Formats: sequence, structure tokens, C-alpha cells
Amino acid sequence: MTILGVDPGVARTGWGIIEKANSQKLTAKSYGCIETQAGLALERRLQIIREELIRIIKKHKPQVLAIEELFFNTNAKTALIVGQARGVVIVTAADLGLDVFSYTPLQVKTAITGYGRAEKGQMGKMVKMLLKLDSIPKPDDTVDALACALTCAFSLRLPST
Amino acid sequence: MTILGVDPGVARTGWGIIEKANSQKLTAKSYGCIETQAGLALERRLQIIREELIRIIKKHKPQVLAIEELFFNTNAKTALIVGQARGVVIVTAADLGLDVFSYTPLQVKTAITGYGRAEKGQMGKMVKMLLKLDSIPKPDDTVDALACALTCAFSLRLPST
Repeated sequence: MTILGVDPGVARTGWGIIEKANSQKLTAKSYGCIETQAGLALERRLQIIREELIRIIKKHKPQVLAIEELFFNTNAKTALIVGQARGVVIVTAADLGLDVFSYTPLQVKTAITGYGRAEKGQMGKMVKMLLKLDSIPKPDDTVDALACALTCAFSLRLPST
Repeated sequence: MTILGVDPGVARTGWGIIEKANSQKLTAKSYGCIETQAGLALERRLQIIREELIRIIKKHKPQVLAIEELFFNTNAKTALIVGQARGVVIVTAADLGLDVFSYTPLQVKTAITGYGRAEKGQMGKMVKMLLKLDSIPKPDDTVDALACALTCAFSLRLPST
């Protein structure tokens, strides 16, 4: 099972590909952050996110997209902007045949650190440890994407074959 | 010049195709509302919006997408949900080569009724009159989409040829 975790945003969309073998071993195959320049028109920025995501999906062939539910204690303007990127990510993954799973920030933090109010630093350390990485991935968007993919890996049951 | 106006939403995405001839005559070529069922998964609903929009664009071949800037006096949850549909609409139009123009609700209301705080009913009557329609289109999302396309038609200069 290969899982694509995504933390969407117009300026930065973090992503991470995690492989879950039958042995329950979890490996980070690849991760990074799609960045778009502030000077570009919104439609161009959304197109870059879609194009990069298509490239990543075609290369790594994940079966599943894991994406955070957005939290609503932010302001409406932020929610709208992030929502646009989230819509593009979801429709792109669905078009390429991925199943889509959403997790609340509370579910992700609890799955990764055992504590629903974990801070960014703790999340980074746990993601590094769980995936046996040499260092904490940067930026935070990439950590959040990997954390979301890990949450999905922990909650999905593998087929028994 | 053919303009596609869209009022995006996950449940209802209003759309309208307006043609602006060199004589400045404005004609509604087609309009309607893409509706998605509440019981469907979000990714499926966003896919339906994308698929229907591609069908409409391929049929009517507009050069321009006119879409409302979302207003931020709504709550964050609404903004997020609408933002997802708006992102899908914008990236789909851009992928198909349309130029994207955004208008604030104030710009649209002022362009259509001459009054920035016009109510829904006034907007419907003015859209019906300006496009010489037999009746006010339904639902309101379709009116808003046509109003946005009209705003674009009023503000775009035609090439002088």
C-alpha cells in the first residue's frame, strides 16, 4: 500500500509518499513541498499544484490520498484560500483513481504523538523517528503531509492476503 | 467574445454563457446550475463539477471565466467549503485555456443594479432585463453566475477590429 499525504496551501503544498509493507514496516519513499510564487495569478498557482501533483502520483503510484480536514478556528479569508488548494488536490487525486481519506488535526496529532495538542516541534521529531529519517523534513508543511500519511497508514487495515 | 460566468459551490455551482458581439449586444447563450447530491463523497462532488464544467466549456468555447471573489464576512467553515469548489472551477478553466477574471460582490452588484447593496430579487430582475430573458433564472446561483458574466462583459473592451 502506497499512501500520498498532502498538506494543501496555495503558497506551499507539502507532500509525502509512504509505503506500508505487509510486515507493517513504514517507509518514506519521497517527500517535498510544492511552492508557488506570490507574484503569479491564482489560476497559475493552482495549475502548478495540479501539474506537480500529477507528476508525483504518476511517479509513485499511490493508491490513497490522506489529507487533513481543515480546522475552522482560522479566519474565513485563510480558509477560503486554503480551500481552493485543497479542492484542486482532492479532485486531481480522485481523477487519477486514488481513494481519499480525511483526518482532523486532532486525529493526526493523536496518531503521531499520542497527544491532541502536540506542537509543531514534537510532530517533526516523531515523524523523523517513525520514518527513521536523518533529519526533520522542512518546511512544516512537509512534516504535516507525512504525519497525515502516517495517520492513514496506522488506521488502514491491510488486505489479509 | 464568449464569457463563462460561474458562482461556485459544492452543492450548487451556477453557470452562464454570455456572448458579447461587436455591436455590444449581449446574449445569454446558455445557463444552468450544476448540482451535486449531499450524500456523495466530497471528491466525487468536486469531480462532477469539474466534468460538467469541461462539458460546458467544450460545447460553448468561452475565452474568459468570470468568477466572484468570495466575501469574507461568512464563517470559516463556509469559506473553506466554497473555496474547494472555487479552486476546482478556476484550475479547470485555466487548464482549458480560459483567462480568469475575478470580481468582488460589490463590483457585480454595482455593475448590474448601480447599487452595491442590491438584494437578490433586484439582481434577478436586472439580469432578466439586461439579457431579455422570459423569466428570472433559477436558482439564485444561476442569476449570480450570469451577473458575474455581465460584469465582465461591461468591463472588457473588445478588440477594435
